[in-house]
Amino acid sequence: METLRKTPFDIDEYMRRVESFHGHAAPGVIIGGLMVRMAQIRIPEGVLFNAVCETLSCLPDAVQLLTPCTVGNGWLRVIDLGRFALSLYDKHHGNGFRVFIDPKNLDNWPEIKAWFLRLKPKTGQDHCRILSQIKAAGENLCGVHAVQVRPQLLERPEKGRIVICPSCGEPYPMKDGGICLACQGRSPYVIREYPERVV
Amino acid sequence: METLRKTPFDIDEYMRRVESFHGHAAPGVIIGGLMVRMAQIRIPEGVLFNAVCETLSCLPDAVQLLTPCTVGNGWLRVIDLGRFALSLYDKHHGNGFRVFIDPKNLDNWPEIKAWFLRLKPKTGQDHCRILSQIKAAGENLCGVHAVQVRPQLLERPEKGRIVICPSCGEPYPMKDGGICLACQGRSPYVIREYPERVV
Repeated sequence: METLRKTPFDIDEYMRRVESFHGHAAPGVIIGGLMVRMAQIRIPEGVLFNAVCETLSCLPDAVQLLTPCTVGNGWLRVIDLGRFALSLYDKHHGNGFRVFIDPKNLDNWPEIKAWFLRLKPKTGQDHCRILSQIKAAGENLCGVHAVQVRPQLLERPEKGRIVICPSCGEPYPMKDGGICLACQGRSPYVIREYPERVV
Repeated sequence: METLRKTPFDIDEYMRRVESFHGHAAPGVIIGGLMVRMAQIRIPEGVLFNAVCETLSCLPDAVQLLTPCTVGNGWLRVIDLGRFALSLYDKHHGNGFRVFIDPKNLDNWPEIKAWFLRLKPKTGQDHCRILSQIKAAGENLCGVHAVQVRPQLLERPEKGRIVICPSCGEPYPMKDGGICLACQGRSPYVIREYPERVV
């Protein structure tokens, strides 16, 4: 990551990428970009890393934009603990860095504080001021821990055999039981016929 | 989506985007691209849609590359049912389309079948043949259902108040309890000091 360390983070260019991928320059994804970078420059060059986000909000998009880790390739895992934090860690040994927003640091940035701690309704927030405070604050909003990931996170889960569900007729992992999880009642929808006659 | 319907899907250009985002041209993301498109062209122009993936494998990246829905903006939800299927649905009314790989259609494409149903070990799979069969098969691998999403998926979960966890000192949603979920034992790592003295 020597090259990364020497390259200043171009936050304006990053904001354009966020707008394209995430839909708008959400403060959470912008701060997330700073957080990803804080973790990434601490990982020794050449080390392959995985990522954890502790919330579904915003941070997964920052990780996916700035690192090789995505939800679909399995290198990014979302463990929804409700904390605005992420970590990058050596995928073989589990040592890495966790970056979080330290509430002690928010007093200098009242607009960020009001947004982050939801002290104002959305309509009362000044998006431009939030973004300019984020640019001014930079890494000063955040804290960093060195972390060691628990061993079970380093194991790649065994996928096992794929079989056909006798109920819906679709392939599913045999380990899930005699019928697939959707047919066990977890399906988020009801199937209708196509064209749209409800059955 | 009239424009989308009239534009042929440039699978080679899509494969280059997959390589850049996902890391390699994984068969699951390539088929996922065809699946996303099958759902997307059925949604009337101008309708805002959300997405569900029924697996963490590959499909979330196809959705994130080809639609405005991402994990971090909340328009894509992963509900891990172990089925290789996705759906796009009207975010207000919940009606949409679910696309899945129909195992009945796999017999014509033995290399895809062996990969998808894990009939061969990874080392015995011919990646180039899988991709050329995917290109030849196109949408013929898949089935489509019209679906109606359950009402609870249409509600945006109430985030509620943010408070400071008395245990770790970080902000978390008050609805999670007296301390945050990480401090309730769900943390995936142990914190070390920085620099790396283990505490």
